[in-house]
Amino acid sequence: MTLNLQYEAIGKGFVQQYYALFDDPNQRRNLANMYNVELSFMTFEGVQIQGAPKIMEKIASLTFQKINRIITAVDSQPMFDGGVLINVLGRLQTDEDLPHAYVQTFVLKPIEGSFFVQHDCFRLVLHDTADDDPPHAYSQVFVLKPLGGSFFVQHDIFRLGIHDSA
Amino acid sequence: MTLNLQYEAIGKGFVQQYYALFDDPNQRRNLANMYNVELSFMTFEGVQIQGAPKIMEKIASLTFQKINRIITAVDSQPMFDGGVLINVLGRLQTDEDLPHAYVQTFVLKPIEGSFFVQHDCFRLVLHDTADDDPPHAYSQVFVLKPLGGSFFVQHDIFRLGIHDSA
Repeated sequence: MTLNLQYEAIGKGFVQQYYALFDDPNQRRNLANMYNVELSFMTFEGVQIQGAPKIMEKIASLTFQKINRIITAVDSQPMFDGGVLINVLGRLQTDEDLPHAYVQTFVLKPIEGSFFVQHDCFRLVLHDTADDDPPHAYSQVFVLKPLGGSFFVQHDIFRLGIHDSA
Repeated sequence: MTLNLQYEAIGKGFVQQYYALFDDPNQRRNLANMYNVELSFMTFEGVQIQGAPKIMEKIASLTFQKINRIITAVDSQPMFDGGVLINVLGRLQTDEDLPHAYVQTFVLKPIEGSFFVQHDCFRLVLHDTADDDPPHAYSQVFVLKPLGGSFFVQHDIFRLGIHDSA
């Protein structure tokens, strides 16, 4: 057992460093140094790729210029090979899109006094719609018209609280 | 390198098996068999604990009886010790609460032809509110009253689309 007891600081420091590069289009290509040419896995929205060249190809294909990112939580755990498991929950907004919640998991593998990203798994928090959907927000407007001591519904407008994200 | 190429099936199978036990109050205690008495870490909503006894204490402290769970995505990656990294995105509803999105990461460690859960990290997808909040849903109702060839706003009701989760 070689737990690295600095896992908390390593996790937070890594996340800060990684996103500083990722979120700057001029520096994004330097992320290549964080992945191993063969021994790194990335799963991006369910699609798995392996090795720094393919990972950097994927990252380079992301065309947005501006990212606004808010980190909600960084949960880190020490791993028994001296690595660190990092779970990030946050929100991000690319260009003029609406913000989305996202989750990203990193596994850092120790190598010669430093680390590389051995596992990287990213997903936006989006759920398929299906018959067993949970409740949706909705708004409904009634206008009641008085009639003979009572009321009737003269206007009724209903809409689910669903927003397009262009 | 001893990648287990069955990682996809192992991930999906594990998730099914784990939640079948977790979601049944009468079987929940059997989850103890999935954790190692010393070598398992759990981070539950940012609080880290270690070892099966403390993990089971935490799980036993969850008092809801009914869970309605919908899995949105299971992303698995093979690890270089033969283990499997599993990322779950889903929604869950406990008792009569409203459904919440959640994320859970598992690292399965191989042991004698089977696996135990070496890392387990759970979080509801909830974000702190702050000045830099992303936009909220809202609804607003206007009733326009005709007046001298134009209109004035006679009624105006505004509400943010925020829901209590009791």
